[in-house]
Amino acid sequence: MTTDGNGALLRELAAVLPAEALVTDADVLDAHRRDQAEWAPAGLPQVLVRATCTEDVRAVLRIASARRVPVVPRGAGSGLSGGANALDGCIVLSLMRMNRVLEVDAKGMLAVVQPGVLNAEVKAAAAAHGLWYSPDPASWEFSSLGGNLATNAGGLCCVKYGVTGDAVLGLEVVLADGSVVRTGGRTVKNVAGYDLTRLFVGSEGTLGVITEATLKLRPKPPKATTLVATFPTLAGAGAAVTDIMARTRPSMLELMDQATCRAVEAYKPLGLDVDAAAFLLARSDAGGEQGVAEIEAMASCCEATGATFVMHTSDEAEGELLLTARRLAYPALERQGATLLDDVGVPLSRIPELFAAVERIAADRGVLVGTFGHAGDGNMHPTVVFDRQDAAALERARGAFDDILGAALDLGGTITGEHGVGALKQPFLGRQLGEEGLRLHRRIKGAMDPLGILNPGKVL
Amino acid sequence: MTTDGNGALLRELAAVLPAEALVTDADVLDAHRRDQAEWAPAGLPQVLVRATCTEDVRAVLRIASARRVPVVPRGAGSGLSGGANALDGCIVLSLMRMNRVLEVDAKGMLAVVQPGVLNAEVKAAAAAHGLWYSPDPASWEFSSLGGNLATNAGGLCCVKYGVTGDAVLGLEVVLADGSVVRTGGRTVKNVAGYDLTRLFVGSEGTLGVITEATLKLRPKPPKATTLVATFPTLAGAGAAVTDIMARTRPSMLELMDQATCRAVEAYKPLGLDVDAAAFLLARSDAGGEQGVAEIEAMASCCEATGATFVMHTSDEAEGELLLTARRLAYPALERQGATLLDDVGVPLSRIPELFAAVERIAADRGVLVGTFGHAGDGNMHPTVVFDRQDAAALERARGAFDDILGAALDLGGTITGEHGVGALKQPFLGRQLGEEGLRLHRRIKGAMDPLGILNPGKVL
Repeated sequence: MTTDGNGALLRELAAVLPAEALVTDADVLDAHRRDQAEWAPAGLPQVLVRATCTEDVRAVLRIASARRVPVVPRGAGSGLSGGANALDGCIVLSLMRMNRVLEVDAKGMLAVVQPGVLNAEVKAAAAAHGLWYSPDPASWEFSSLGGNLATNAGGLCCVKYGVTGDAVLGLEVVLADGSVVRTGGRTVKNVAGYDLTRLFVGSEGTLGVITEATLKLRPKPPKATTLVATFPTLAGAGAAVTDIMARTRPSMLELMDQATCRAVEAYKPLGLDVDAAAFLLARSDAGGEQGVAEIEAMASCCEATGATFVMHTSDEAEGELLLTARRLAYPALERQGATLLDDVGVPLSRIPELFAAVERIAADRGVLVGTFGHAGDGNMHPTVVFDRQDAAALERARGAFDDILGAALDLGGTITGEHGVGALKQPFLGRQLGEEGLRLHRRIKGAMDPLGILNPGKVL
Repeated sequence: MTTDGNGALLRELAAVLPAEALVTDADVLDAHRRDQAEWAPAGLPQVLVRATCTEDVRAVLRIASARRVPVVPRGAGSGLSGGANALDGCIVLSLMRMNRVLEVDAKGMLAVVQPGVLNAEVKAAAAAHGLWYSPDPASWEFSSLGGNLATNAGGLCCVKYGVTGDAVLGLEVVLADGSVVRTGGRTVKNVAGYDLTRLFVGSEGTLGVITEATLKLRPKPPKATTLVATFPTLAGAGAAVTDIMARTRPSMLELMDQATCRAVEAYKPLGLDVDAAAFLLARSDAGGEQGVAEIEAMASCCEATGATFVMHTSDEAEGELLLTARRLAYPALERQGATLLDDVGVPLSRIPELFAAVERIAADRGVLVGTFGHAGDGNMHPTVVFDRQDAAALERARGAFDDILGAALDLGGTITGEHGVGALKQPFLGRQLGEEGLRLHRRIKGAMDPLGILNPGKVL
């Protein structure tokens, strides 16, 4: 089962871990080589370890440190930046068997969970106590909390309720040398020492392996009121977004461009206006008459900025129906060909410029790009669609993907808003952070993982 | 003016800084030795530098690094943990002349400010554009943004809107060696690299000197509705807090104990029930009828948990009047003697236990302790009052102060929720973080400030 080269590593792991935790079957290893970022490089691991407890993780990291073997932590594998992609000869450390909700303290408004629990399971555990775990990445039904933490995952409702990191009170983390630290705690406010919780959140497994998280729960918000509007120009849609954000507190504020609307209509005819430049979707969960007043204020913003069609509803079923177009955006684009899903952020005021730049890039590169995303946060997903069989098309698509990153940076934005740097965008990070910024990152990485065994080649 | 020992340092500083930036006058130095934490140790600086730009800060840190001279960054000096207290022979680096609001981007919902600007000035600049900078430490009228950032300051409205760090999009920071990094940016969401913004926020000048901050602005919230309630037992008040937090989203949720209410009544008779065990103050800014519905839900929570008196009002002037008691809490306690103001946090569900522990400690130590604070965040300020002239009383007060930190830790809490560790609580940090936690802190500190010149003896 093992080759000569890694026999010693496997023997050491087998000495401290239960037999069923160690997997070297080629098919299983192959299934654990990569996440959903199809185009990011992925190597071949020598072993998969399925940890069942913190002690397992410690054992793996102690052995990996002693033998200088890279460790790639892995959750559900739903990542979109190659952050969980294997390196040749590495240990893939799956946290998916550490999948328990350890505690829900309803009065303390918190939950303590293991990293392999799914986002949906945390939501369900909170709901059983009448509470709400707010972070809602699109992958919430199948992504693990550990992955959400590793990428500081966003979602639709973070425009009002914040990203994953905003819901984390504390962590248990195993460091590269196998030692265990606890960061933060069970209190909402805490300034005792550095904010290491936030340092680990979003660090994509390069600084430590999160083995437990204490999460902040909220009361369930009132029922949402939903608005849709279409705009003849991107500038008008962008103006509506900034006006809505300045005057109201939407619990959702999404935009889709014409290419995306056309893909959705082609996939599932919903009666969208395929000649409109942009389709806007907003929600208020202010509740009751205030929710209606807030959605009416949003409608006024849309009308004042040139929307050709505006409607809103407080009926829940109808509201869900209006969301369908947005939910189908990515699946519909995927139907049109292979996709490169991007994840850029720009300052709120520059969304129309981002759309314009993406249109220009699509024309220049001769590719189709559909853009949709979390307009209220300035976080958009321009998605390059191309013919998988056509090597030249892939080349052009990659060019467009890179150009979009450059455009976001030129607009004072970021190369990733919620998916992470991973392996996919690592080459671009320096352009965003600058030489001094990169140097500081390396100093911190060096202090926390001096042997460089934790997910090497990711982020930095 | 200068002694032989520091002549060379002063000459080097004078060579690169304008003459008016350098102060060695003994009286001025004495006025810059400490913040408001009266009982924290403070040394005698050899020079005060009043920086006017990032370049000044760089020059100071380069020279300080070359000469291994400690640098203590300083804002308005309103800190409560000795974080800005001088060390013998140090450079005190004042940022108060870097006091400009550089930009308000209303459409981008952000402001760019220098560290010496007051919190109130940021609020005013935002308000001029119809927007709101939410963080509101009690010191908001006289504390600097740099200090707010250094301590990750909290306040009354963070129960709904978060602490200072939640409002920071990006920073410019000068590192110990004089290099400059920019963290974060102008986007709401950003996962490109580690969250260094949050690492610097709350690090109390021990990792770098913040020279610019990009702050998130919000729409102004609707007018608030205000509720007050009194409780015959602390357990009842605690139950009201957890019920209110589980069912509503208060924009303020404060508690005061009997000792505090009595101090307020003695200072300024407001007709408070001085026989009640606790006085609760809550607000909703949900707006309109929803605000009234929310405050009525809070009132129901209070009635269900045994409140003997509950009233609420949507009248703004009346609401402000009801806040008076809370605003006078600390000034009223200060009237009763010298004070040691503590700042502990506990999980939301354990507030009654904290109150009980504080009562026990006050009795055991024979001191008066008035407790008030941000109940909705579990962040309370037990304030030990004692006779300044009585050395034995000071000793007992210090004992009580320390006991309260221990009690918070025993309840799964924190030694500081919003004031910072500074010099005052540095000896207690290890008990909260544990040996591994402290070790990780020191590794990060060592990587970022290898010569240990940045505010040594604070936090760690």
